[in-house]
Parts: sequence; C-alpha cells; structure tokens
Amino acid sequence: MKFNCLVVGAGISGATCARILAETGRKVLVIEKQKNSAGNCHDYLSKEGITVHTHGPHIFHTNNKQVWDFLNRFTEFRFFQHRVLSFADGLLIPFPINTDTINMVFNTSITTEDVFSFLEKEVKKASFANPPLNFRDAVVSQVGERLYNLFFKNYTIKQWGRQPEELSAEIAKRIPVRTNRDGRYFSDQYQGIPSEGYTKMVDNMLNHENISILFGADYFKLGNLASAFLDEEKGLTIYTGELDKFFDYKYGELEYRSLHIEFKTIEQEWYQNAAVVNYPNDYDFTRITEFKHMTGERSDKTVICMEYPRDKGIPYYVVITESNTKKRELYMADVKALEKNGKFIFTGRLAEYKYYNMDQAILAAIEKTEKYLKSC
Amino acid sequence: MKFNCLVVGAGISGATCARILAETGRKVLVIEKQKNSAGNCHDYLSKEGITVHTHGPHIFHTNNKQVWDFLNRFTEFRFFQHRVLSFADGLLIPFPINTDTINMVFNTSITTEDVFSFLEKEVKKASFANPPLNFRDAVVSQVGERLYNLFFKNYTIKQWGRQPEELSAEIAKRIPVRTNRDGRYFSDQYQGIPSEGYTKMVDNMLNHENISILFGADYFKLGNLASAFLDEEKGLTIYTGELDKFFDYKYGELEYRSLHIEFKTIEQEWYQNAAVVNYPNDYDFTRITEFKHMTGERSDKTVICMEYPRDKGIPYYVVITESNTKKRELYMADVKALEKNGKFIFTGRLAEYKYYNMDQAILAAIEKTEKYLKSC
Repeated sequence: MKFNCLVVGAGISGATCARILAETGRKVLVIEKQKNSAGNCHDYLSKEGITVHTHGPHIFHTNNKQVWDFLNRFTEFRFFQHRVLSFADGLLIPFPINTDTINMVFNTSITTEDVFSFLEKEVKKASFANPPLNFRDAVVSQVGERLYNLFFKNYTIKQWGRQPEELSAEIAKRIPVRTNRDGRYFSDQYQGIPSEGYTKMVDNMLNHENISILFGADYFKLGNLASAFLDEEKGLTIYTGELDKFFDYKYGELEYRSLHIEFKTIEQEWYQNAAVVNYPNDYDFTRITEFKHMTGERSDKTVICMEYPRDKGIPYYVVITESNTKKRELYMADVKALEKNGKFIFTGRLAEYKYYNMDQAILAAIEKTEKYLKSC
Repeated sequence: MKFNCLVVGAGISGATCARILAETGRKVLVIEKQKNSAGNCHDYLSKEGITVHTHGPHIFHTNNKQVWDFLNRFTEFRFFQHRVLSFADGLLIPFPINTDTINMVFNTSITTEDVFSFLEKEVKKASFANPPLNFRDAVVSQVGERLYNLFFKNYTIKQWGRQPEELSAEIAKRIPVRTNRDGRYFSDQYQGIPSEGYTKMVDNMLNHENISILFGADYFKLGNLASAFLDEEKGLTIYTGELDKFFDYKYGELEYRSLHIEFKTIEQEWYQNAAVVNYPNDYDFTRITEFKHMTGERSDKTVICMEYPRDKGIPYYVVITESNTKKRELYMADVKALEKNGKFIFTGRLAEYKYYNMDQAILAAIEKTEKYLKSC
C-alpha cells in the first residue's frame, strides 16, 4: 500500500490537516520526530492528578466559530477565562493594562471614561517615533513611558534577549490595552482549556482509521523511505517543521526563541492567585504558571512552572527582527513555488515562521487543506 | 534509509526485543495496530489520579533476576504483594487455598502441619482420573471436591465458557495450593507494580534514538511497504501478533478468550479490602479489581473494574483445549521453519499461542533476541 498524504509533525497544525484529509478517505501518515503527539501543546497528567503543560501554559482562545466548532468535535472545553497578574512595584497588578491597573499603579480612582485621556497625557509626555520604528515606540505610543518601564521594558528584554528597540513594532499587536475594566487576558468570544488536555484532544483528532502515526522518526533522515510511503503521482506532503530546515538553511538560519522551563511540585494547596503571574522586573524568569487554576483540578499539592527564555533549545517563538523577516521572505517565495504544483503545503508557526496563536494555526491548516481539496 | 529490524507489536514482548536490538546500534521500526504502546499491559492515569489497567489487573511477579534487573532499568517498582479474596458462601476468603482458607471455610482451627493430611482426606473422598484427564481432575486431585466446587468449578465455567472437563489439566498449574499460611497470590521473589505504570515502563523501553514507532498501522495491510522499510539482505522481522493470523489461518482459527471490562468510578475512598476479589459463584463477572490497592495512590474516589469473559474481542488468553493444541503444533512447525533462516522471530503470548505471564514473555523475548544476535 501507499499513503496519499504525508504530514510532517503531529502538533495541532499537522493533526488538523491529517484529520481533514483522513475524513475524505485519504490514507494519511503522520511523521513525528518526538515520541508523542501535540507538539508544543503537549500536556500530561502528573502524579498529583494535575494536568501540566510540558511547554508552558497554553490557553485556547478564539473569535472564530469554525475553529471552535472544529475543536469541539474532539474535546469538551472547561470554560476558563484567563487572567494575568503582573508583579511590579511589589504589587500584584491586573494585566494587561486596564482601568484597574492604572488605579492600582498610581493609586488613583479614575473611571473608565478617564482612561483614554489619562493614557493620552502619559503618551504626550513621552518621546518616540511615529509611526513606531520598533517595539518600544509601539508600546510607548499607546501607554507612555511610566507604564512601559513598569510592565514591558524588562519583560521584553528577558523574553527576547534583545533590547525592545531591536524588535519589530508588530509584536506589540499581541499586547492589548483596555480602556474599560475588562481584566481578562483575552477578550475572545470562545476561551477555555480542553477538559482532558491538549494531548488527548490532538490524539482524538489523530484517532481515525485512515491515519497512521510514525513517532521517533526524523523526516529529513528518512530519505528515500519518505517517498516509498507516498503515492508518487498524486501524493501530498504537509510540512509543519522549521521553515529554514526544510530548505537546508540555504538563505541562512532563522532565529527561534526557546525556553528553559522549570517545574516544581509544591506541598500546599495553592501557590498564587492566578494561573499566570508575570515577573517583568524581578528574577530571571518571565512568569510563573500554576496549572490548577486553568484545569480546575483539585489536589492538596500544586504544580507550578517558571519560564527562563533561551536562544537555543526547542523552537517556541519566531523572532520578528528585520533580518529574520527578510530571510523569511526569501524562504516563503520558495514555499510558494513548491506549493504551486499541488504536492506541498507548508503550515503552522514553524513552517510559516509566523507568530500564530493556536486558533490561527488551526484556521490556517483548515483553510490550506480545504483549498487543496478544492483544487483536486 | 532502511531499518534493520521490524517489530510487529508494541507490547512488552515487542518492546523488549526492540530495546535490545536498538542498543546494538540497529535501527528498529516497531509497527503497532493500536494508537498506543504496552499492548494488553496498557494503563493510564484516570482523572481521579488513579492508574487504571485498561485490560484488567496486571501484577508483575518473577523469580528471574535477569528479567527483574532488565525492567528496573526502565521503571522503579512499588513493592506490592498481591493478595486475593474469594467471595464464597457469603464470606471473603483468602485465596489461593492455604491454611487460613481451610479454617475459614470449614470453621476449623487446624495447623499448617495438618493441612496436607486434611487435603489428603478430601481428595480420598473424591472421584477423578489419575493421571488427570482435564482441569477438573487436576484440581480435584489436589483439593478434593468440596473446595473445587466452592472456588474453582463455577469460576472456570465463567472464565473459559466451557465445562472444566473440556479444559486441559495444564491450566491447573497456574493455580497454586499452599500447605502453609502464605496468603499471597504469588510467592515469587520479586513482585511489584511499575511506579509510573506499565505504559510508562514500555514507553521508556521504546524511548531510544534507534527506535521509531508506527502506530495505527496494520502489518498485514502494509503489504510491500513493510519490505520497503526493511533492509532486504539482513533485515529481521519480530512478530508478536496472533499466530494463526500470520499464516492466514491456513490450519484453521485458534481460539482466544477475551473479556468485556466494565470500569466504574465510585464516590467513596475504598470499595473492597483487597486489590482483587474473585466471585466464583455470584454474578456474571469473574472478579472485581480495585486499582488503588496496587498503586498506593490516594484519592477520595476509587476506580474498580468487573471482568466479563467473552469469546470474541481483544485476544487475551489462549484456550488450551486438545483441538487448539493440535492446531498450534502445526503452526509452530511453520514458525520453526521460518525462524531457521534468521529473518524471523516469533515471540510472546499471541505469537507463540502460549499462556505466558509477563515475566515469561519478557524472558522469552530476551533469550530469542540474544540467540539471534549470537548467530549474526
């Protein structure tokens, strides 16, 4: 037998494509370097009965009903609304910036009506390029220098290992500022955590009679075996790995930011008052996550993790600098040419070198796969 | 690239062979029909934080130090000593039969010295063929008719769906009778439960850089792909699936006994006083297992399972009848011929159609693999 489709990577992007293709009757082989599915969304139930996110906290949120409905075929969700506290000036302050943040930082008692004019005054006092040239400009132009210094500057230096002036203004788009009292981290219509975890959700997606999964195999080391798997005439390869690696780094290496994540089991019921507490200015980690808040699991112990950003390691984040953006464009031109013949799809955070949230990655995977199916 | 070895089945037999071969530098591909490893030893951590054995209770026990040391490379063990109670005459009676069993059943107070003569008298009163022709004869010749009727007769009918007279005397070898007070179910030197479960233990065995695992793929449906994987010249295939299936049932189907297992989560701390309670005469299930006893996990809930034997379903037990034994011999002659050329090994409960305990299956896998390696 031959497979009709080869999917490289068993993360949410690969699993989404594999599922859609399998449901059309195509025989799909998913190839995964690791020995487990779900990629960077991987989680597992700890000895204490607490679901732990192997690669740091993942909170699902989307405004896209299609994506939400798709995932609800494979998991129930716990309706968790993510809230983040930021430890700054020795206080635990609601983050992102909203009315309550400002009142707590400055010990004022302004109303939501006043937030806009308050921020306007802050911005007026500051100096920055307009339009913003970099991440610092982009944030300062929204909140002024005082809030920038308190919440963003040092967090960004820790997170990216670079000065905010070296980073693209685009990253600031992910950081909402609210002129109301909405203290949630996301304001999307659909938010939650898969009731039995992301790994189970992805495994359910992959649990289809037309899907086989090859774990512990590196696509690039398979060589001629990869083509032996695949129907040569009409076979489709979906690639979700690192973009630069696929092309053997011909335009140079793209930078990915990684994390060293330290897990601790604590012998007390709760560690902190929110799922995530940011530490912009203190310690070397960026944040502490306490998983029980997300999952609603009960235990007299609790599991937390600290994230220490690193240059090397598992690729987690694309690094949007000018040089990386230029290289990406070169690679993406090659991708476009490859995709044209209908035998390749590149999709996902790594393969597109794009700062996708989970829902965006799933949407891209759905749209690209459906576009391919229409073209057949 | 090509693999040097193909292992069909990711249970303990396949994982043992795969690990040993991988450690010699050989590239190994494990092919597994299911989407998970560990075969019939599979377990998982339930929502309640209780490790549940998917295919009924598995307690590891061995007198073989080589097997014990081998497994201890991949897991720690919780030192659990299995005890079984049998619900008979409305009492919960220690099983297998030992001094305390007899005293409880007959409300006597004999000493261990008297057990032998007590059983001798029981046997003298009974009628049976000597040497035993079948399972009934084999048991009655050891314990007499009263204990046979109380503990063995109906349990056997439930377990095998056959009259004890139709079953081989050999099965009775698995049922110990003790003339001392040892109330443990096994008396082996090494007994325990893998601290993080069997699945984790098997995954640790498979977690080697030279091992890839293909889940959700049926070896028999792969056709020419299976040979595309394998180095043709010197490639080795290790088969751990059903013996009759490999040969396309050419000598007829071998019978396997299966179970329907019903799991229940109970909202109380404990359900029963032992890991396993046998129900020889009551209800339709053979036994109830309460997993927390084995694992030592704590929870205010508990998970139990009831086993209902069936003819059809996942093959769990070989059925040692005359007709099956004859068919087995025909198949095994073919196996021997195949193994001779050094390209095949058949090993494990299913592939050898043999009532192996876990340790026996592992020992066979070790010995067969090492024999192969010596012949290379």
